[in-house]
Amino acid sequence: MNITEFFELSLGRWRSQRSGHHLAFAHFEESLSTIDIVPLDCGDEAVIEVCKTNDINPQDITHPFRMTWEGESDWDDKALAGTTVLVSVPDLANPAQGKLLRDRGYAETVNAAGRYTFGDDGVFTLITGCDRAGAEERIWFANPNVRFRVATIKSSDGNGITTASFPSEIRSLSNS
Amino acid sequence: MNITEFFELSLGRWRSQRSGHHLAFAHFEESLSTIDIVPLDCGDEAVIEVCKTNDINPQDITHPFRMTWEGESDWDDKALAGTTVLVSVPDLANPAQGKLLRDRGYAETVNAAGRYTFGDDGVFTLITGCDRAGAEERIWFANPNVRFRVATIKSSDGNGITTASFPSEIRSLSNS
Repeated sequence: MNITEFFELSLGRWRSQRSGHHLAFAHFEESLSTIDIVPLDCGDEAVIEVCKTNDINPQDITHPFRMTWEGESDWDDKALAGTTVLVSVPDLANPAQGKLLRDRGYAETVNAAGRYTFGDDGVFTLITGCDRAGAEERIWFANPNVRFRVATIKSSDGNGITTASFPSEIRSLSNS
Repeated sequence: MNITEFFELSLGRWRSQRSGHHLAFAHFEESLSTIDIVPLDCGDEAVIEVCKTNDINPQDITHPFRMTWEGESDWDDKALAGTTVLVSVPDLANPAQGKLLRDRGYAETVNAAGRYTFGDDGVFTLITGCDRAGAEERIWFANPNVRFRVATIKSSDGNGITTASFPSEIRSLSNS
């Protein structure tokens, strides 16, 4: 699998079953959600806006898409819902790595650009933030209809990982 | 990190927080356990036995170790405990991949040898069984004291993944 196939396989509707681990307290969180990943046109207004904010030429991007999620968690019974636009900017020298830009909405002030690499083992690794604080996510396909992710948040003091989450995702073949 | 550092970092006592996902039913399982990974001598009796069973010359092996686990699951309140001996047999041409042999005890009849590869992204991938049925496990370190694993079981009809589990593991710095 190459990076283009990886992005294309990600498109569609996914049923996501997610476990969150709060490592210091060995606390478990469970959530279920539906995730829609829809390709966007490179000329889409939201895509152009992400490029502008990050000072990127829209001609250098590939695979812009919108991700929308909706679900529920047993942690405080909170509802989960959101939408974001993601845009990849592959390195010229090596398209298996690059920047992933993200529209995090006007409520967020953090720079939402991350670095990704796509390994020979089919694992897409995304690192957001600096060395001492930030997030790392690994995503891979077990088969074309099953996708796994592990996301970790590092604490701002740089001493450790505070939370890890594991969503396992099954492609929803119906549209309901 | 190289494969030798990977094996050496794995040694020690780990507190493991594990989520199991039964994908078809979106069922969650939670368990907590303690895992001890102790290096063995290449001449250890149990190591020699694993080599014999698999027709491997003990001179071709590296990093034999014993893994012992003990814990509890909320799935049927079952107690989890066990011990196994693992022996790696790196390929001569490329030590970043090879066979991983396993002593599964006299109750198991399945051939317990798996193939591993260690990627540039620091992910150790182990595949056990044939294409249509078997298990895949990915293991990596977030930092020297935090280890993640994702293990998946493929159904015997080859059509899908039946279960996935996510253990997040923190090194236990005390001996208690």
